[in-house]
Amino acid sequence: MLAQPAQLPRHLVESAILNALAEDLGQAGDLTSQAVLSPDAWAVASLSAREVGIIAGLDLVAAAFRLVGDGVSFEPQITDGHRVEAGGVVALVSGPARLVMSAERVALNFVNHLSGIATLTRRYADEVAGTHAKICDTRKTTPGLRAFEKYAVRCGGGANHRFALNDAILIKDNHIAVAGSVTAAYKAAEAFAGHLVSIEIEVQTLAELEEALAAGARIVLLDNMDNDLLRQAVAINAGRAKLEASGGVQLDRVRSIAETGVDFISTSQITMGSKPLDLGLDVTIGGVE
Amino acid sequence: MLAQPAQLPRHLVESAILNALAEDLGQAGDLTSQAVLSPDAWAVASLSAREVGIIAGLDLVAAAFRLVGDGVSFEPQITDGHRVEAGGVVALVSGPARLVMSAERVALNFVNHLSGIATLTRRYADEVAGTHAKICDTRKTTPGLRAFEKYAVRCGGGANHRFALNDAILIKDNHIAVAGSVTAAYKAAEAFAGHLVSIEIEVQTLAELEEALAAGARIVLLDNMDNDLLRQAVAINAGRAKLEASGGVQLDRVRSIAETGVDFISTSQITMGSKPLDLGLDVTIGGVE
Amino acid sequence: MLAQPAQLPRHLVESAILNALAEDLGQAGDLTSQAVLSPDAWAVASLSAREVGIIAGLDLVAAAFRLVGDGVSFEPQITDGHRVEAGGVVALVSGPARLVMSAERVALNFVNHLSGIATLTRRYADEVAGTHAKICDTRKTTPGLRAFEKYAVRCGGGANHRFALNDAILIKDNHIAVAGSVTAAYKAAEAFAGHLVSIEIEVQTLAELEEALAAGARIVLLDNMDNDLLRQAVAINAGRAKLEASGGVQLDRVRSIAETGVDFISTSQITMGSKPLDLGLDVTIGGVE
Amino acid sequence: MLAQPAQLPRHLVESAILNALAEDLGQAGDLTSQAVLSPDAWAVASLSAREVGIIAGLDLVAAAFRLVGDGVSFEPQITDGHRVEAGGVVALVSGPARLVMSAERVALNFVNHLSGIATLTRRYADEVAGTHAKICDTRKTTPGLRAFEKYAVRCGGGANHRFALNDAILIKDNHIAVAGSVTAAYKAAEAFAGHLVSIEIEVQTLAELEEALAAGARIVLLDNMDNDLLRQAVAINAGRAKLEASGGVQLDRVRSIAETGVDFISTSQITMGSKPLDLGLDVTIGGVE
Amino acid sequence: MLAQPAQLPRHLVESAILNALAEDLGQAGDLTSQAVLSPDAWAVASLSAREVGIIAGLDLVAAAFRLVGDGVSFEPQITDGHRVEAGGVVALVSGPARLVMSAERVALNFVNHLSGIATLTRRYADEVAGTHAKICDTRKTTPGLRAFEKYAVRCGGGANHRFALNDAILIKDNHIAVAGSVTAAYKAAEAFAGHLVSIEIEVQTLAELEEALAAGARIVLLDNMDNDLLRQAVAINAGRAKLEASGGVQLDRVRSIAETGVDFISTSQITMGSKPLDLGLDVTIGGVE
Amino acid sequence: MLAQPAQLPRHLVESAILNALAEDLGQAGDLTSQAVLSPDAWAVASLSAREVGIIAGLDLVAAAFRLVGDGVSFEPQITDGHRVEAGGVVALVSGPARLVMSAERVALNFVNHLSGIATLTRRYADEVAGTHAKICDTRKTTPGLRAFEKYAVRCGGGANHRFALNDAILIKDNHIAVAGSVTAAYKAAEAFAGHLVSIEIEVQTLAELEEALAAGARIVLLDNMDNDLLRQAVAINAGRAKLEASGGVQLDRVRSIAETGVDFISTSQITMGSKPLDLGLDVTIGGVE
Repeated sequence: MLAQPAQLPRHLVESAILNALAEDLGQAGDLTSQAVLSPDAWAVASLSAREVGIIAGLDLVAAAFRLVGDGVSFEPQITDGHRVEAGGVVALVSGPARLVMSAERVALNFVNHLSGIATLTRRYADEVAGTHAKICDTRKTTPGLRAFEKYAVRCGGGANHRFALNDAILIKDNHIAVAGSVTAAYKAAEAFAGHLVSIEIEVQTLAELEEALAAGARIVLLDNMDNDLLRQAVAINAGRAKLEASGGVQLDRVRSIAETGVDFISTSQITMGSKPLDLGLDVTIGGVE
Repeated sequence: MLAQPAQLPRHLVESAILNALAEDLGQAGDLTSQAVLSPDAWAVASLSAREVGIIAGLDLVAAAFRLVGDGVSFEPQITDGHRVEAGGVVALVSGPARLVMSAERVALNFVNHLSGIATLTRRYADEVAGTHAKICDTRKTTPGLRAFEKYAVRCGGGANHRFALNDAILIKDNHIAVAGSVTAAYKAAEAFAGHLVSIEIEVQTLAELEEALAAGARIVLLDNMDNDLLRQAVAINAGRAKLEASGGVQLDRVRSIAETGVDFISTSQITMGSKPLDLGLDVTIGGVE
Repeated sequence: MLAQPAQLPRHLVESAILNALAEDLGQAGDLTSQAVLSPDAWAVASLSAREVGIIAGLDLVAAAFRLVGDGVSFEPQITDGHRVEAGGVVALVSGPARLVMSAERVALNFVNHLSGIATLTRRYADEVAGTHAKICDTRKTTPGLRAFEKYAVRCGGGANHRFALNDAILIKDNHIAVAGSVTAAYKAAEAFAGHLVSIEIEVQTLAELEEALAAGARIVLLDNMDNDLLRQAVAINAGRAKLEASGGVQLDRVRSIAETGVDFISTSQITMGSKPLDLGLDVTIGGVE
Repeated sequence: MLAQPAQLPRHLVESAILNALAEDLGQAGDLTSQAVLSPDAWAVASLSAREVGIIAGLDLVAAAFRLVGDGVSFEPQITDGHRVEAGGVVALVSGPARLVMSAERVALNFVNHLSGIATLTRRYADEVAGTHAKICDTRKTTPGLRAFEKYAVRCGGGANHRFALNDAILIKDNHIAVAGSVTAAYKAAEAFAGHLVSIEIEVQTLAELEEALAAGARIVLLDNMDNDLLRQAVAINAGRAKLEASGGVQLDRVRSIAETGVDFISTSQITMGSKPLDLGLDVTIGGVE
Repeated sequence: MLAQPAQLPRHLVESAILNALAEDLGQAGDLTSQAVLSPDAWAVASLSAREVGIIAGLDLVAAAFRLVGDGVSFEPQITDGHRVEAGGVVALVSGPARLVMSAERVALNFVNHLSGIATLTRRYADEVAGTHAKICDTRKTTPGLRAFEKYAVRCGGGANHRFALNDAILIKDNHIAVAGSVTAAYKAAEAFAGHLVSIEIEVQTLAELEEALAAGARIVLLDNMDNDLLRQAVAINAGRAKLEASGGVQLDRVRSIAETGVDFISTSQITMGSKPLDLGLDVTIGGVE
Repeated sequence: MLAQPAQLPRHLVESAILNALAEDLGQAGDLTSQAVLSPDAWAVASLSAREVGIIAGLDLVAAAFRLVGDGVSFEPQITDGHRVEAGGVVALVSGPARLVMSAERVALNFVNHLSGIATLTRRYADEVAGTHAKICDTRKTTPGLRAFEKYAVRCGGGANHRFALNDAILIKDNHIAVAGSVTAAYKAAEAFAGHLVSIEIEVQTLAELEEALAAGARIVLLDNMDNDLLRQAVAINAGRAKLEASGGVQLDRVRSIAETGVDFISTSQITMGSKPLDLGLDVTIGGVE
């Protein structure tokens, strides 16, 4: 379903997990495990789904069990971007019980959050299946987790909008107001941008769209337009620019937007409106003193 | 409504904002602002609410505008933990337009997320108003943001469960299974814990509750019990331990749980099930070349 | 002797060692070893005790030899919390001589310091053996090393007081003065604290003790009381709260304090007044060009 | 008393304080202050000495009160390296009570530790006053605090030995054994070292001393020699090299060592054997609600 | 000369300067200044050019003098991207002499390096003046300094190629070989990329160029073609894609390349082949004891 | 050719590589490889020289391929400090193609830069072969890379001047002016410095040289003197101090300087004036789907 599976850079994964372990273990570590579990106790666990969904973030789970200490094995049974059924086993874990218990919450907090995003993205993507439109995300992401959340969007079959303020230009109404016109803003952006920096311009009206196209725009964001306007925009555009619909996108309306013929539909819902997918760790501890 | 307003440690705020600015500005900064806005352009902005809610995270907003560069002023019009109406102005911002625009998304991503948690927590807290029960959170939080999300819970009138594995003992079913009995697990915890470390023990049945109380437990988590069982637990307890109900808590059931007489109701819903509060920055840019 | 052996979180150990190696190796590394030792030189070494004591910190020693470079083996002959006699071998080390020499001082600076704390703590603990009292530490620790020093206290048979300002409430005279009374301060703390946050209150007099107990205090610090007063405090308390004696605790007085019947005796002596235990690395280098 | 007052690099001070505040405030900050003190409460405090000593570390104290939050003023009444009498006021502090209380322990843990080192160093320095010898430190320092402890040694009138393995060469018995002879080791070091890298060589016997001098050594460490041997070494040296006595140095023996005519006496006692100087913060809190 | 002056994100500037100060000051700071200069000594200095060039990096110079300690003033006399003549004053600095001397080398190492890049870029840019071509950089930059070096390129009138592997796709010969054909590689990239990710494809021959254009390529890198081939490529392209010439670009050949009609000429020479611009700090120290 | 091969501390290597990978991979990693290369594609590559030179930095190359992810093997065919001919193979690399491609630029940017420094240093060193003089570097290095660049100088047969302001004293004209005389400045430095801190003093004239020698200077920098003056300085010195010539050193003049009899010739040319050595990675990718 993925063109090619994407990959999270390893250093991002490791630093995120080290920070999260520090957050959850503090200066004294898992007091309960130290109090109740012998250092020799052994845990065998399965990470399983309590509900159907799309998995994202197994590299983070692996890193949590690898970095918490020595001796925990982790065997994924599925790869990111694939569907798990309710009751399905996502991964097997075994190792010293204290370590398994210490990393459990960190692992789950990541994978449940990211799989929730992947799952909701897939629902949006499924809604528009068969149309020309792709679902994409926004910069409305959780601070510190953008790389992971955008990766989860890809796992769910969505596409990524720009990652940050520095990797593409997006001219909004404020910028246009300052520049004086759509044309002036677009020309200023062209003059500034390197040749690999994409420029997108947001328009509020069909007149602005026409001005943007005349100025040479190749990517246009149609801001908060209803479906009628979107259809007219598509007609005016006549294939010249890529068109992105944005604003007020909800799951029950997204197909009708897609059917207007736009190329992209962006929504913060897939990152900000998702619920964690309910995955849990079923643990059996033995070999105790 | 707050006993005393809580406070976020400054170093946490600053390091979170520096990380988030790095995430959003990358190596080249806000390309669009550099392309379209003169360095002399000046922005006047108001942070305002598009819907009613409880505000949390203004220190983070202040830090975003302070750390993005020199010369941005930030004047809060309200303090964390208070209610804002739809259309209400939360803060005023003014400064060099490039800087205001560069920090906007970082500021909003924090304050909208945290105010969403505070707002939902307040709804839960309002539901149980007049009963003995307090709403509290769990360790199901967004990795890297736990301090802030738990702060938002306090802003919303909730209480905090333990922050991490190292600041209290919570004995769960797995631990009890390993230890052999509720009593054995509790005694092991008592033997290990320092005198300022609280010990909570999770029980699945009334029999386990009685055993825990007999072992000296002062805080007991009643796991996934229905309201009838909770009422019986309250009766058995007879004020000896603090009782926490957990599992399957939803907004429409929470009052009935509270009315069983438990002391605390913990739920991951308030942190994991909230939606961002819709706050936006209304910007006017002038003074341009 | 330990209820259960405690464990240092791995990420704390690794980051402390990386910092310490950076401190001692700087930008050019161990110049002497590079000048005099061939890269092929091989070292065989034993970490041995020049005096009797209790060992703490072997995970840090292991990490120093693991993180300084590839190829050094480390085999502990004893585990933390156990006694070593003068002349006893604590661990065996072998590897490339340059690496062994480069990590030696970092390893020793940690293990000698922490074993010194464990050893002194054990002397205090032995003094009060047979009484009800436990020895515990304070927040008077070396900046940056608190987690390790408190771990060493546990290795020595002591208990930990709170780790930091954020994991328990300790109401002192200043707070009481501001609040207006013992009762007011205690009630403010109760209203603020989450249900897993312990509250301790410091009292200067028996009258304050009675007020604290009446207010519901479960943990009371008896500040700088002589043994007579402590005995009276124990009598007044009649088992209601845990009592902690603090102030002016010295090794030659600690048993008499314990015999007053208090539950805890806290002292900064065990962390701030210890001397490093004299462990050294006996190295033989061979296999040189 | 100081040739010129030394200075701690600002970035070291700030990063050490930020780490220490993080260690003591954790994710929730000072719970007690938040519970009991109004955000408007104001504290006036004096940092005063409970015993006579030499002060070191006031830049760290200043940074603790500056970095904990906005609005705390700090006015030193003395500068590092100077003597304070029992009861003397070292600095005045005033500001929001929550902030003053939150930074208190961090500030004291640094300044008491460092002033303890400065005070003990001064005692050693006073012992050898009038002789040719200078007291100096070693690399036996607390991990993470070496820069500060060596600074405290300078404040106490001591001199610094090398800071780390990378800023000077110190050839020890192991290196000599590997090289085959004192001469071979010294020549290897000379061949390797840059022209600003000092080379010191440790000798166990007078014969080794003579060999080292013949090889051109300009700095020689006389390891664990008694005073008779030291006197002979001084005579043999006849001013050619700087001589450092090391090993078994104690306060009651140090003058007799100095009177042998050596140039330097190095001892880990001044860093590892000191006790914290007893400085405390006398706080008055007012202006409360 | 700049369309709009670009700006370095503040957090990048501050962290780079803090790292560089740590590198140059180490644990003991500037020993020479501490030895010879009184803490009261005052320095007045001017940063001036010993040769003509284009300035880049004044924000870094400002940060070096701001972060080294309190009390140094910095007044730039020119802004980045502008030309300074030999002997011209770039900035005025005054403050405590120890601090000025401590930050001098860090400040110069940055500004001289970056101004060298800006100056050489300007020479390339001047060579192609009047043609259609823009000079741009590559990813051959100094590790850790890419953001600053690419900023210096902009200051010199150059444009930036992609910053990193994550902000644009550049399909090279290896990728084409693996994909099987130019077309297959381009289609794979289109399928994977988000709509704001630019795709450039490198071609070795005119046949590959035609295939790339047929596949829809909008940005094509002409690898190591001589001017004749470049001219033919421009003719074949007929304005469809942006064309970038790369490989073997030297200052004395760049104009002839530009005159072939390509849109961009990329070269690592401007970042890797520049020499530091010779700026120095002329310091007068007075006010000494 | 190296007295003993030097070694880079491992923690420096790893943190530099992690930073560089973060710089080049950003939040989304290598988009091109993800788009075009299957996760199963396998790369076999050789790092080879396109020109003759001296290699430096292979530990960094190894770390780049080790830290980018699991499964890449790296086999050096040569060690740092040795000469490679044009076409010579420096190392073999094989592993998952995505990982090899992702780390390529980071690896090359380091090794090419450092080998360029080593190669140029060797040219200077070869020029002075047979004389008494050694070539050494300065503090004019790239911010953040000083440890590596000074290591490359050693690989090229040069010696290192001081690494930073904290590891030796270098009294310059400004310091002398403030102190009042060469003698006063030197005496101040002697009084301040620890016994392992070397003191070098810069002189402009032969009169200053004589004053410095009279004051006891053992290392003297002869600033910007022509060869006649240098010869006279050598004669005056008569072997008392080490003499360093500095200023205006170029490759075509360096031998004549060396023949004046000075001990050291320092120049920023070897670090700031080098060009990257042209090493490239020849990659073959196979095993694709």
